[in-house]
Amino acid sequence: MKNFVFYNPVKIVFGVDSFFKTGEYINQIGRKHLIVIGKGSVKKNGLLERLQQILDKNNSEYFILEGVKPNPVIEKVKEGIELAQENGIDSIIAFGGGSVIDTAKAISAGFYYKNDPWDLFEKNVNIQKALPIMVILTVSATGSEFNPISVVQNDSLKHKIRFQSEKIFPKISILDPVLTTTLPANYTAFASVDIISHVVEGYFTSEDFNTPIQDGFVETIVKTVINSTYKVLNDPDNVEERANIMWAAALALSGITTSGIGKFRFENHLIEHALSAIYDIPHGAGLSIVIPAWMKVNKKRLSKKFSLFGKNVFGIEGNEEYVVDETINTLESFFDKIKSPTRLSSYNITDFEEIKKNVIECAPSRNLKIDYEYISEILEFMR
Amino acid sequence: MKNFVFYNPVKIVFGVDSFFKTGEYINQIGRKHLIVIGKGSVKKNGLLERLQQILDKNNSEYFILEGVKPNPVIEKVKEGIELAQENGIDSIIAFGGGSVIDTAKAISAGFYYKNDPWDLFEKNVNIQKALPIMVILTVSATGSEFNPISVVQNDSLKHKIRFQSEKIFPKISILDPVLTTTLPANYTAFASVDIISHVVEGYFTSEDFNTPIQDGFVETIVKTVINSTYKVLNDPDNVEERANIMWAAALALSGITTSGIGKFRFENHLIEHALSAIYDIPHGAGLSIVIPAWMKVNKKRLSKKFSLFGKNVFGIEGNEEYVVDETINTLESFFDKIKSPTRLSSYNITDFEEIKKNVIECAPSRNLKIDYEYISEILEFMR
Repeated sequence: MKNFVFYNPVKIVFGVDSFFKTGEYINQIGRKHLIVIGKGSVKKNGLLERLQQILDKNNSEYFILEGVKPNPVIEKVKEGIELAQENGIDSIIAFGGGSVIDTAKAISAGFYYKNDPWDLFEKNVNIQKALPIMVILTVSATGSEFNPISVVQNDSLKHKIRFQSEKIFPKISILDPVLTTTLPANYTAFASVDIISHVVEGYFTSEDFNTPIQDGFVETIVKTVINSTYKVLNDPDNVEERANIMWAAALALSGITTSGIGKFRFENHLIEHALSAIYDIPHGAGLSIVIPAWMKVNKKRLSKKFSLFGKNVFGIEGNEEYVVDETINTLESFFDKIKSPTRLSSYNITDFEEIKKNVIECAPSRNLKIDYEYISEILEFMR
Repeated sequence: MKNFVFYNPVKIVFGVDSFFKTGEYINQIGRKHLIVIGKGSVKKNGLLERLQQILDKNNSEYFILEGVKPNPVIEKVKEGIELAQENGIDSIIAFGGGSVIDTAKAISAGFYYKNDPWDLFEKNVNIQKALPIMVILTVSATGSEFNPISVVQNDSLKHKIRFQSEKIFPKISILDPVLTTTLPANYTAFASVDIISHVVEGYFTSEDFNTPIQDGFVETIVKTVINSTYKVLNDPDNVEERANIMWAAALALSGITTSGIGKFRFENHLIEHALSAIYDIPHGAGLSIVIPAWMKVNKKRLSKKFSLFGKNVFGIEGNEEYVVDETINTLESFFDKIKSPTRLSSYNITDFEEIKKNVIECAPSRNLKIDYEYISEILEFMR
């Protein structure tokens, strides 16, 4: 095992109807909130009104920032910071999925930051202060509810990169699986791809090989997500299985599965972020296109971990080469079965040059050295 | 999954030579410390002197409380509180294993508590304040380095019970596997039994059965502890495997494996605490006597979870009854192989009445209803 520091002070309030416990916890973050929401689904389904009732009953003040889109942009962060500063808010409620949380995190840091908030991302500024955040989660995918990471896009640069700081951990995250039951089938599938991607990036490319705890945890998360995804796609109201997915998503990027594995590469995310930034496709959909292709190109170099995964997650037996090939096929076929795309042709994307350029440009922000030919090879398998 | 709140703000600093990072972190807990140690092994092996050098270099002040014994007692807690108050200390360094940490936690809470610190345990007092704690771990077993629990014994009552509060989470825990390499073989074995016991108590008696993540995590921890224990018993200096055990121990009672499983019973610990309290035997040794007996008595009622465990941890196949019996045999035989006792006769204990009385008396502090006949039946298998 490699040396590590693990620290995750988020308080998770998990379970059916935990949404209605918001009133019990809200004063722990502040008295005057900025509520950040997405493009309006919490308005349409009445959840926002219910939250307002809870806050009104508590005599909390609040302002609403609406319209965060799935691949969140820095312009919305700036709008949020302005709104927050004008109204002297003291805390943020992120009411939505990963893009809403990531926007809330950027606002919480940007509130105290004197310069352009894009600096936070581009220079990963070491901030000293941020507003406290409560998350009320409606989409389980990114794990942002249980980590100190924000990923935001700069539309003019077409860069989608991350900012990380202990100060932007949510203080409290309310995880009510009932709130995820209205998620449509395609986004349910994309979310599951995203969860799996978060654990396999570390598992496949870890620096250390004597990490049986971390490996077992990853295998458990992937097996659970696969089983539960089939069940919720058949029965969207299956709250029990939504709950399993919800807890898997939170754990997946919480640091629990990556602590001790040493350095690892986040290449699938790097490539996918180029797709999202340029073509605005859903992150999970992009990942199901990238992962099988990336695995095919890396199957010799990473055969040891690919075959371990295939044996323990899918029960594939045989010689290593066979196990590796079958592992890639089985994962790709899972993506097909849940109808998450596995080829760029699904989005009529045929021009690869801009993607390659973007990947090379954004690689340094992930401390990755990426080679033009390597990306080209992966893109060929994504065609 | 059942509803839960998960919160664990301990900062874990893990890895080879992380002991020498103490100086980087020490000012985060305070400037004037009470160092709590056990019966002197850190003095003999020179580690205490090294810690003093680190603190001296940092111009930290400190006082030393020595002589915490393996089943820690409330008298030592009182001595520590007095020493801390007399000298106006502002923080505690727990330098040892579980008994040292649990004593430190009780002192940290008792420092601000006006009455008898035994109240904290007997009434599980809802405290508002405690001194910050840094743990430097030398024995991986109880998991106290990563949780808010203290278990202390009252010698005059012969009661060994727990106190739990968010305020007694260690602020920082330094987990350096090198420090555990000098642990003798018998205590290495007892430690592994303790780790396994922490995860199986929840796994075997959980209220909820749709908890694939928690189950998989437990199975992973148990498999890792078994494999790594064999290796370190053969090669005590195997730091890699000591590290796997160290991380397993910390995770085992961190809340990660029990969140969502609902109510569960801690019966093996209840019974073992009676043994430790009356006969002062090592906690892990007591547990390896209790667990197989407890399983034999409960094998019909808990067959579903026992057989799941046997299949996934030991790879036992067959009909449920067979799998359950083989699971119990295999676990007991693991205890035998690592030379942790499985019968009371190893300690020449033949009088069961006091044990039964103690269990019945202490049961309410764990919210357990325990029946005299049930305990008698388990004790027969421990004979």
